[in-house]
Amino acid sequence: MNTVHSIKEVRNEIKKWRKEGLTVGLVTTMGFLHEGHESLIKRASEENDRVVVSIFVNPTQFGPNEDLEAYPRDIKRDETVCEKAGANLIFNPDPSEMYYDDASTTVNVAGLTEGLCGAKRPVHFGGVCLVVSKFFNIVTPDRAYFGEKDAQQLAVIKRMVRDLNFDIEIVGCPIVRESDGLARSSRNIYLSNEERKAALILNKSLNLAKQSLNEGERDANKVKDIIIEKLNSESLAKVDYVEIVDSSNLKPAFNINKPVLVAIAVYIGKTRLIDNFTFKM
Amino acid sequence: MNTVHSIKEVRNEIKKWRKEGLTVGLVTTMGFLHEGHESLIKRASEENDRVVVSIFVNPTQFGPNEDLEAYPRDIKRDETVCEKAGANLIFNPDPSEMYYDDASTTVNVAGLTEGLCGAKRPVHFGGVCLVVSKFFNIVTPDRAYFGEKDAQQLAVIKRMVRDLNFDIEIVGCPIVRESDGLARSSRNIYLSNEERKAALILNKSLNLAKQSLNEGERDANKVKDIIIEKLNSESLAKVDYVEIVDSSNLKPAFNINKPVLVAIAVYIGKTRLIDNFTFKM
Repeated sequence: MNTVHSIKEVRNEIKKWRKEGLTVGLVTTMGFLHEGHESLIKRASEENDRVVVSIFVNPTQFGPNEDLEAYPRDIKRDETVCEKAGANLIFNPDPSEMYYDDASTTVNVAGLTEGLCGAKRPVHFGGVCLVVSKFFNIVTPDRAYFGEKDAQQLAVIKRMVRDLNFDIEIVGCPIVRESDGLARSSRNIYLSNEERKAALILNKSLNLAKQSLNEGERDANKVKDIIIEKLNSESLAKVDYVEIVDSSNLKPAFNINKPVLVAIAVYIGKTRLIDNFTFKM
Repeated sequence: MNTVHSIKEVRNEIKKWRKEGLTVGLVTTMGFLHEGHESLIKRASEENDRVVVSIFVNPTQFGPNEDLEAYPRDIKRDETVCEKAGANLIFNPDPSEMYYDDASTTVNVAGLTEGLCGAKRPVHFGGVCLVVSKFFNIVTPDRAYFGEKDAQQLAVIKRMVRDLNFDIEIVGCPIVRESDGLARSSRNIYLSNEERKAALILNKSLNLAKQSLNEGERDANKVKDIIIEKLNSESLAKVDYVEIVDSSNLKPAFNINKPVLVAIAVYIGKTRLIDNFTFKM
């Protein structure tokens, strides 16, 4: 496995592989890799001859008061994780390699980006679409792998790929959890011991919702109330949003009569965590 | 030469060519091809093993009061022109092949698109960037050819390609003119005989500007006045804009001390025509 920092080096590598007729999978990450990322890389390596992992804390997807500077980084550890999981190339560019000072092109997906995380993070998905478009054009993968934990991101990327005719298969991969149920996230490192315990409330509240849906509840507001009540029982938790949306277009669902995404964002202390599940009926 | 209507057919063809190691040039057009397009196709065919010409009157780049419906179409004639000029494949999709009803992705280039044609055509360049991105992803050419007559479009596409890391060389090709100096345009067909004669004023006014620059004039406003005065001498002409801008970033130039684009848009009757030249010092 090789780590490169320039677009040119990535392209050279890809060209060699393409000459040999090899397929390429891409996993785009912001580094500080956990078992969620690992599962994406493993899946990519099962389904492709070669796997590229990008590690880039992308400034354009952070808002002005978000944690760009604080975002955890550990490239050495990431390299070990990538190698073990089957990656062949890490692309770890500097921001100056990715963005010109006078960069002026934007890529946006309307509609899907307005609710859920997009409501409070107005620049986030534009930044994601921009950087993912760039990685797609640099790596030109056959398949790209995204975690279902960022369910809205996955829906947005799928829509962008469809609308812009990227010839890339987008593969969504299941959420990976800690043994006690907390969804893996690079941001979990921000949690104190006490907060770490409190954070279990996200998964617990979703499990209650799942149970109620499995028992036949079809009123989205009632299911949301179950989640909110549970979240509010944890004094360290502050609800950002609890939403039930059509899983294809992310529009609010009222009567649940087709597949829905049940998605929550919750502050535990100062750390904003997200979790979700899809109920397929 | 072959004409296809679906994205899938284009991709199949491209894949075959790529397997043989052939290079691909792309010329994106709205059809009703004239000698300007022909020169692009010929150039593409000199520089690439295979040439794809897209013929698609793209609805997203027309404003609500523009000439989308009236825009001239003649696919049979276009096929003859393409074949003669050396094209290997025409991609002539229906709008429904290109755009889903719930299409929601946009691609925009800020700054470069605000002046010149962008000022009066606010949706135009967004539509161009979107459709060109799509063609780039469908055809994945090595090189794409654009006319210098649409100088702003060429600058915008180059910026988009740079910012989104498309691995495509953008080749600008010189304006092709009628023997009397009128720049070739599919819209010239709208002109009555009288208007056709009046339309020569565009090129004539630019020639005066060129002469003044060659004689050492460096005050952009004085050069603009020369153009405007000449244009106003033609009673059928109504100036839309006369601009002198930095040719790299399209920002207004005042003292001319680096390469500038001298660009004009003029209504001749109801027909809006554009013309330009670059003064390199």
